[in-house]
Amino acid sequence: MNKPDDHMFVIFGASGDLTKRKLVPSIYSLFVLDLLPKKFALLGAARSEYSDDEFRSNMKDAINEFGEHEDKSRIDDFLNLLYYQPYDSSEDSINKLKKKLDDLRKGNSISGNTVYYLSTPPSLYSTIPQSLASVDLNKEEDGWKKVVIEKPFGYDLESAQELNSKLMKDWHEDQIYRIDHYLGKETVQNLLVTRFSNGIFEPLWNRNFIHHVEVTSAESIGVEERGGYYESSGALRDMVQNHLLQVIGLTAMEPPSSVEPAAIRNEILKVFQSLRPIKEEDVKNCVIRGQYLSSTIKGEKVKGYREEKGVDPDSSTETYAAIKFYIDNWRWGGVPFYIRTGKRLPTRVTEVVIHFRPTPHFLFQQEDFCNTCNQLVIRIQPDEGVLLKIGMKTPGAGFDVQNVNMDFHYSDLSEQRIPSAYERLIYDAMNGDTTLYARSEEVMEAWKFLMPILNAWKNDSSIPLYGFPAGTWGPEKADSLIEEPEMTWRYPCKNLSDDGIYCEL
Amino acid sequence: MNKPDDHMFVIFGASGDLTKRKLVPSIYSLFVLDLLPKKFALLGAARSEYSDDEFRSNMKDAINEFGEHEDKSRIDDFLNLLYYQPYDSSEDSINKLKKKLDDLRKGNSISGNTVYYLSTPPSLYSTIPQSLASVDLNKEEDGWKKVVIEKPFGYDLESAQELNSKLMKDWHEDQIYRIDHYLGKETVQNLLVTRFSNGIFEPLWNRNFIHHVEVTSAESIGVEERGGYYESSGALRDMVQNHLLQVIGLTAMEPPSSVEPAAIRNEILKVFQSLRPIKEEDVKNCVIRGQYLSSTIKGEKVKGYREEKGVDPDSSTETYAAIKFYIDNWRWGGVPFYIRTGKRLPTRVTEVVIHFRPTPHFLFQQEDFCNTCNQLVIRIQPDEGVLLKIGMKTPGAGFDVQNVNMDFHYSDLSEQRIPSAYERLIYDAMNGDTTLYARSEEVMEAWKFLMPILNAWKNDSSIPLYGFPAGTWGPEKADSLIEEPEMTWRYPCKNLSDDGIYCEL
Repeated sequence: MNKPDDHMFVIFGASGDLTKRKLVPSIYSLFVLDLLPKKFALLGAARSEYSDDEFRSNMKDAINEFGEHEDKSRIDDFLNLLYYQPYDSSEDSINKLKKKLDDLRKGNSISGNTVYYLSTPPSLYSTIPQSLASVDLNKEEDGWKKVVIEKPFGYDLESAQELNSKLMKDWHEDQIYRIDHYLGKETVQNLLVTRFSNGIFEPLWNRNFIHHVEVTSAESIGVEERGGYYESSGALRDMVQNHLLQVIGLTAMEPPSSVEPAAIRNEILKVFQSLRPIKEEDVKNCVIRGQYLSSTIKGEKVKGYREEKGVDPDSSTETYAAIKFYIDNWRWGGVPFYIRTGKRLPTRVTEVVIHFRPTPHFLFQQEDFCNTCNQLVIRIQPDEGVLLKIGMKTPGAGFDVQNVNMDFHYSDLSEQRIPSAYERLIYDAMNGDTTLYARSEEVMEAWKFLMPILNAWKNDSSIPLYGFPAGTWGPEKADSLIEEPEMTWRYPCKNLSDDGIYCEL
Repeated sequence: MNKPDDHMFVIFGASGDLTKRKLVPSIYSLFVLDLLPKKFALLGAARSEYSDDEFRSNMKDAINEFGEHEDKSRIDDFLNLLYYQPYDSSEDSINKLKKKLDDLRKGNSISGNTVYYLSTPPSLYSTIPQSLASVDLNKEEDGWKKVVIEKPFGYDLESAQELNSKLMKDWHEDQIYRIDHYLGKETVQNLLVTRFSNGIFEPLWNRNFIHHVEVTSAESIGVEERGGYYESSGALRDMVQNHLLQVIGLTAMEPPSSVEPAAIRNEILKVFQSLRPIKEEDVKNCVIRGQYLSSTIKGEKVKGYREEKGVDPDSSTETYAAIKFYIDNWRWGGVPFYIRTGKRLPTRVTEVVIHFRPTPHFLFQQEDFCNTCNQLVIRIQPDEGVLLKIGMKTPGAGFDVQNVNMDFHYSDLSEQRIPSAYERLIYDAMNGDTTLYARSEEVMEAWKFLMPILNAWKNDSSIPLYGFPAGTWGPEKADSLIEEPEMTWRYPCKNLSDDGIYCEL
């Protein structure tokens, strides 16, 4: 792996949770792995009035508590690279920040290359870059400048477009790194390798042989401390708009011309552009929303969403969403795609399930329609791997067929340390690799696709919000999205709760 | 499983090895499993002058020594069903045999249904059925009559045709059961189920996606006590003519219209009829023959073939054969098929390897041509199962691809007792199921295909017979059959012997 160019790394929101839990511990890992450039400094910026030493002391605690790299012996060396500058968006404070940056550059002989990482509330995503530009900190004469923006990028199509056009006044597209990925790069790449290094999969990867595609991302936890944020987000904005549509993009894309980020991004964008728009009046038929209710899981009482901290007791925010949709292109014409996501489901799992068509002729005895359908399950997390379900003869007399599993666990391949998602994201941003970052067109297409659903839910109160007991697989009604009467979603495990109350809220 | 019709079961060659080791122990298993009809008697016939009791006593020892069913408590009950009649092919002795049969039928109220099982030297395969017909024991007025004929059916095309036309004078095709299978019925059926119950395999099962097909049947033992027989047979007659061409038939056949034996047999015959004839002058290029030499395997000295008991010290009989050939039909046009078989190879294994074509574009870094080719390995014995090799990303930086295995072992499916091949063969013959028996057309097509090879080896002494150390994978020259320079046979395990002497004999 290459070392990035010499640069400064500026974190806005440096007193926040993400900085402490993820960003600085990840950069420390890069330091231990000798993946930081020789000339490097990290400048934290936030409202808090820390000195350099106070910031270093805080970060020392953070690395000790959250650092993923087991080698903690080099923390003090690393802390020498850390600095802090209070910042409150005022004209005065941006000038002071600029001065501190200039001083650090001169003092450490670092070129003008700079990453600005915005780990702030979304309301600052446009103002900080504007502020930076107001003092020419966006200019690239003395080296590259990049702005990394955390999710969510906008709250809906309009706000995303507005944010984007504000950014575009002072920055160009190549300078903006929109985080859209909770998948590690390893996983994204592995999905591509699974699809495109195997001559046997691509010929089957189309409408002729695939019956439908299912993407599930389940979490077993509830909203925990994030009730306030979640109230204004919901499952669709939190998971579908960015993460799950990216998974759909990787699953459905045409073979890219190369593995360059731009080539891959182009193909994902084409998938998004081919998403069949869902009409607002059809939302009730092809989207199911749900909210978890209190229940008993393994003998323990669990809160319902409306009882969580920071949540409106009459909240209509969805914690569960299931969508059926189509991709209108030559490869996928007529193949239904299904996305399902939710909190407080029975397990934590993200997987893509390719349901292949049954054989055109049933030569052998079988119980039902898809008793013997082949499925390819690409497990993304946890326990990354591939599972293929094939038909084999049931031993003994007769010609009965049963489904058996052929399984591969990615972890069997290597004991090698896999970098965490943030470690990779930051390293890639430093190196200008945009594989894990979304372009504005992608973000807009994803919002465009979701707007009719968000609008219908807001405008049409007759669309049910289904309650379901925490620890179950969501509203039973979601099975009705799947057309074939004998088919349901794949349930990787059983319901945890037996409180069988499903209701319309 | 159904019980067969009431019948008599007559074994010719009842004092021989096969009767003792396989036939009677297998019929005892059927007895214990309650799969024999209520009215049943077994009549042994051979030159030896045994009484019923002597025969029973011999068979008691045989079942105790070779019986596969663990329940030995019912041997005495079973022995009551056994009888013996000396028989020497004379007119007198066939009349006596007929009388004994008649008496047994009357005494036990058994109808005229009869299986005649010929476990005799091949020279008697025509004379015994003729003899039976001479006293009307082939007539079906009082019940069905079947002749089961052990392999080999003929020594070459001419002798097979001669044997067949002799049989056809007195018997019709449906009465003749030619054993051609060392595969259990379970395995044959499983090969069909694997191919035809999986929607994902059939679309790939043709010239567009398959690069070549390899069938290997290796034995680790030498000729042991069978040197005399083997001298007049060799690998081609012993393994290829019947067994391995059947495996090719099952692998290459079109989907049958049903799983009825006749429907399956029809499709296998069509494959045989599509075998591209090998010209005698091309044999030197597309067939490799070999003979094992003495060597040291795991520290132990092992005899070469020419030193084995019953073998000519100058023998040119092949103990190893590898053939490249084509099936000229729409499905397989241009796809090379490879068969390889031999004794004293490093392990015992029978497997079909489907080598899929590489991807049309190499998106990722890879070392060589088929580093990442997909292979489907159908293991027939031992440890029946399926293995799929797929490409996955090597963990870590970069986009390297490596082959990983997805494996399924048939034995994982069930603890159920799988009947031995002979138990199944005999039960099927009693029930009129011909799945495991060859029709005359198939036998003739198989001989037709092999004759140019047998003739070339006999007539052209310039065709090398390669010596190779026992315990290795046969002549290195065999790799040259595989066209692509980077490709070799699949070697399921390493050479056992390091005596690296490969030579032309």
